[in-house]
Amino acid sequence: MKPKIDLLLTNAIVLTMDEAFRKYDHGGLAIQGDQIYAVGSSEKLREEFEADSVVDCQGKVVMPGLINTHTHLAMNLLRGLADDLRLDVWLLGYIMPVEREFVSPEFVRLGTTLACAELIRSGVTAFADMYYFEDQVAQSAADAGLRGVCSQTILKFKGPDASTYEEALDSAETLIKKWKGHPLITPAVAPHAAYTSTEDILASSRELAVSSDVPLHIHIAETSNEVEECIENYEMRVVHYLEKQGLFSAKTIAAHCVHIDESEMHTLNHHNVGIAHNPTSNLKLGSGIAPVPAMLNAGLNVGIGTDGVSSNNDLDMFEEMRLAALLAKGNTGDPTLLPAKTALAMATRRGAEAIHIAHQTGSLSAGKKADLIMVDISTLHNSPRFHNDPDGVYAQLVYAAKSTDVQDVMVNGKWLMRSRELLTLDVEELLPKAQKIAGKIDRFVSKREQSVYSKLIAVGGAVEQESYEVQAKVKVEDPQAVIKALKSSDLEIIYDRHYHEYDTYFEFEDSEEGWLRYREDEFINDRGEVYDIRYRLTLIGPERERKFPQEVLLSRSRFIAPASHSLRFYREYFQPTGETFIEKDRLRWKVSYHGIDFYINVDRLDDPDLGTFLEVKSRTWSLEDAEKKSEMADDLLNILGVSPQERRTDDYVLIVESESA
Amino acid sequence: MKPKIDLLLTNAIVLTMDEAFRKYDHGGLAIQGDQIYAVGSSEKLREEFEADSVVDCQGKVVMPGLINTHTHLAMNLLRGLADDLRLDVWLLGYIMPVEREFVSPEFVRLGTTLACAELIRSGVTAFADMYYFEDQVAQSAADAGLRGVCSQTILKFKGPDASTYEEALDSAETLIKKWKGHPLITPAVAPHAAYTSTEDILASSRELAVSSDVPLHIHIAETSNEVEECIENYEMRVVHYLEKQGLFSAKTIAAHCVHIDESEMHTLNHHNVGIAHNPTSNLKLGSGIAPVPAMLNAGLNVGIGTDGVSSNNDLDMFEEMRLAALLAKGNTGDPTLLPAKTALAMATRRGAEAIHIAHQTGSLSAGKKADLIMVDISTLHNSPRFHNDPDGVYAQLVYAAKSTDVQDVMVNGKWLMRSRELLTLDVEELLPKAQKIAGKIDRFVSKREQSVYSKLIAVGGAVEQESYEVQAKVKVEDPQAVIKALKSSDLEIIYDRHYHEYDTYFEFEDSEEGWLRYREDEFINDRGEVYDIRYRLTLIGPERERKFPQEVLLSRSRFIAPASHSLRFYREYFQPTGETFIEKDRLRWKVSYHGIDFYINVDRLDDPDLGTFLEVKSRTWSLEDAEKKSEMADDLLNILGVSPQERRTDDYVLIVESESA
Repeated sequence: MKPKIDLLLTNAIVLTMDEAFRKYDHGGLAIQGDQIYAVGSSEKLREEFEADSVVDCQGKVVMPGLINTHTHLAMNLLRGLADDLRLDVWLLGYIMPVEREFVSPEFVRLGTTLACAELIRSGVTAFADMYYFEDQVAQSAADAGLRGVCSQTILKFKGPDASTYEEALDSAETLIKKWKGHPLITPAVAPHAAYTSTEDILASSRELAVSSDVPLHIHIAETSNEVEECIENYEMRVVHYLEKQGLFSAKTIAAHCVHIDESEMHTLNHHNVGIAHNPTSNLKLGSGIAPVPAMLNAGLNVGIGTDGVSSNNDLDMFEEMRLAALLAKGNTGDPTLLPAKTALAMATRRGAEAIHIAHQTGSLSAGKKADLIMVDISTLHNSPRFHNDPDGVYAQLVYAAKSTDVQDVMVNGKWLMRSRELLTLDVEELLPKAQKIAGKIDRFVSKREQSVYSKLIAVGGAVEQESYEVQAKVKVEDPQAVIKALKSSDLEIIYDRHYHEYDTYFEFEDSEEGWLRYREDEFINDRGEVYDIRYRLTLIGPERERKFPQEVLLSRSRFIAPASHSLRFYREYFQPTGETFIEKDRLRWKVSYHGIDFYINVDRLDDPDLGTFLEVKSRTWSLEDAEKKSEMADDLLNILGVSPQERRTDDYVLIVESESA
Repeated sequence: MKPKIDLLLTNAIVLTMDEAFRKYDHGGLAIQGDQIYAVGSSEKLREEFEADSVVDCQGKVVMPGLINTHTHLAMNLLRGLADDLRLDVWLLGYIMPVEREFVSPEFVRLGTTLACAELIRSGVTAFADMYYFEDQVAQSAADAGLRGVCSQTILKFKGPDASTYEEALDSAETLIKKWKGHPLITPAVAPHAAYTSTEDILASSRELAVSSDVPLHIHIAETSNEVEECIENYEMRVVHYLEKQGLFSAKTIAAHCVHIDESEMHTLNHHNVGIAHNPTSNLKLGSGIAPVPAMLNAGLNVGIGTDGVSSNNDLDMFEEMRLAALLAKGNTGDPTLLPAKTALAMATRRGAEAIHIAHQTGSLSAGKKADLIMVDISTLHNSPRFHNDPDGVYAQLVYAAKSTDVQDVMVNGKWLMRSRELLTLDVEELLPKAQKIAGKIDRFVSKREQSVYSKLIAVGGAVEQESYEVQAKVKVEDPQAVIKALKSSDLEIIYDRHYHEYDTYFEFEDSEEGWLRYREDEFINDRGEVYDIRYRLTLIGPERERKFPQEVLLSRSRFIAPASHSLRFYREYFQPTGETFIEKDRLRWKVSYHGIDFYINVDRLDDPDLGTFLEVKSRTWSLEDAEKKSEMADDLLNILGVSPQERRTDDYVLIVESESA
């Protein structure tokens, strides 16, 4: 009596994508439960088995499903939000602010579910994800029926799902406990990258991954900038730094690796680190072209990934493997490099190896899970078909076939799509929900873009300063006399400072926006050396009213924020309509006068060269207090030997503008 | 009364792609006959016009059809024939031999018709083609309803449709006469490339193009090799060489331009030469990455093309424009370069400008022909949609949309596809015909690959030599004595030669294949200088019989061919199982002995160093003649002072092999 199996697929071109690249032009597959029971010629399997159900594949290709080795599925809800921008403007100006505002468990659930639909429709059966609220990713994938490595992100700073990295590590631990052993889901921990982790994060993540025997997913050397900073900070390249942290004792998935050298490849190979190559994302963000042929030569398991749709802008692994093959050739000038067969192996078996689930999936071999797709290669854009080259079918799939040629998808023995009809998901129900969130995000971004203040908040927050400002400013011909007067006075000097300041004032079309000042403060010590530098943004509102009798008293908004990015970044992000630059040398004293604190600045304007000014300053939340202080400011000018009659309240930027006009 | 028009499209996102990038989120289009009558808001057009027919576009994008600026449509029948090979092996070993054998008017007709179907299904409304039997391309496109620039190829050597270039030029002239003024077809002349043209071809092509006022289509600087050879031959880069030939006085379409410098860009721009950028083909063949951002900066009209499917392997302009945008960013590290809007303009208006048909098509503007497509951007892989970025819709089309999202296609006011249904072509009828030709090509290639001889023929032909070979060879210790004897003999010396020869013998698994010898002959003059070099392939069959009483007589096949490619090429193409190298110095005399011609060689084997041999040789088609000559060979040895008893017939390759064994 013949052995009985659940399902027999017959009359297919079976590409096993196993190590020997076995293929059967008239092949079939025997499936029992969630597993592949046998692979072989269609005829032989028919003779050998009795099947509950027989599917005639009508000459389609049956092959392992594609494996997307690096993605951020929930970002499907952010597709097309911002494109063609610099990496930092894109990430810090758009993606992260929107994530901070919108990413919630519900957001992740909806985004991932939509992404799962897109993955299935393009022939993907397994993925490695990295995001926030990763438990929701796991649940969505499990519900959709997809196989996934789901990695909880750990950041050294506040993320959408954790105020501290300890919280994120706790989430990772909970995720692992909950999902470990699930037939579809492999939980994992994801310290985001070397440059967004502390050494403690790397150590704790590695310990968690090793003790739980789960993968560790991390971005490595995506940009040349990351490499330069790592060398500057640690005097070694990124892979060597991470090896020093012992990271690779975990089963590591390294995303990108655009900028690694031969010695780093050797290190990665030594530790069996899997590589996720993301060609579209690397091109689109201008990161570069990863040295994939060299990685393959070094023996590395290189898989292919789409990255999130924000930098792709889709999850189409057919496009991705084609691009991987093309780039390797075009970038080296050698068209024999990365042939189609290798590209398809990277998108299947080697991808499974790269994300450490090759024991389950990646090739059609007896004992592996039944994860497969059926592709129609008889369509117009695939025709005609040649047979003289035994590898021709791989070339056809990689260079000519489209994701829309995928007809059927099975994961773990269960059909997820038949004749392009999704069986586990209702896209029509999900799309309007996605569009609703997109509408909210649109309003958030539009509103934010309406004011410099909102953009400042979005890019990292800002602290509001006291509303009332006492500011008396007098041009002085003999600064030494002022300093001498100060030192010989009865004023209690709380501290003194010496700065050299480089200020760039951004102006905006609408003068109601005020100025945004980008300041670099060099801290100078007694020996005249720079011992520290501070970068600050200050948004200075227009003056609200000038009804005060004392002209030294102003009321205006003022927000202050550390400037963690470059002037170039802020220029592109805020798009000012004008700019004024001022360089000055500032001697500052904090003094106490009748128990009230004042700042006294002696500012020498070097660029433009406008001489030296004395400033007496104070700030307060109280109008009453401000009025009292404005009177005292006049006293202070007298004490310092300067006439209050010459005082003015103009900011330096106005003085410079009027002088240059 | 409202003006009456034929057709009104309403409720569309209209992207005009005109110079101002006008777009209408709730737009429409009024079409009268083959022309666009008006573009504007849907509501306004409804008020303004009365239409015979109104089509509600249901929020789809209406935009100009894509323009494929460089392709070889009939090559659709060769899709997937050979991939992942070196350019020369691919072109000279597969594509050109198959073209020589198969390309006929019927082949071109069928291939082009299938290609037109693929173009329409992927949203292309116009193309610039370059191939053989171009009249058939024009007829196929006209029948399909597509707009095309159809360029007849001119080659300096024999092509599939012309024995001489004069014949090809005649075909071009006939093509132009027949099609000039056709509403869809623009005929053109295509001198294939600088390196495949004579100066006369370039001049005649240019004259024809200028006098007929049609475009001239040419490949320029596709590979670095082409540039190097041009510099070697003419001491200038390709564009400068062609400018010197006056080529650019024609309306030129320059395909590829991968390896051009800033000064060449300036020259091309000065002459309003259009560029066809083919990113996939350039990557796939390892040609490199064209400097597109620099070209755009230089003001050049750069369009996008797929090239033929043999190097792509499809005609998908959506993939092509996405790749153009991505490559520019990844290759420069600047993600703001070639934004989606620019990529889409290259694929439409600027493409039309590049192929010199912008007066007809390329943008949706009143007065232009009604060439347009409707794209559904509400599908899963396109969702959600953001509105905050006014250029977001371009990014969506370039980075996320697929060719399969194109729903409807109109050319010249006529629908060619509605809801993805082709209206002018029957693909189901054509595909089996294509598969039949593919089967024949498969058999041709397979059969050819079965023998070294067939592969030699395929790669450029070979001439069969006389069947009978008289060859007496004796090792001599005193070559000067032999030479002295020769000179003092009564033999009439017809000429003498001095060669230095580098021979590589390929061996094959099946000894019946014989050897293939690749020989470099250095011609040495009286002063010992090399004055010429000849490269030759000789296929030496195994000896057929040794029944002859005279051991100096052999019967075997022998084919000779000029070796126009490199040893590396032949090695990869023939895939020998073994190789033997021999370097020797040869003094050769052609002599007449009793009215019969013989060759006398004095060969000093330098590598390996095996001493000097005297050879007496003759070849003939007649056995009787051969038998007579073999007797005379012994006499000659005697005359030269050498004993015929020591003679042997072995080839040097066998002597070397036995010595080294």
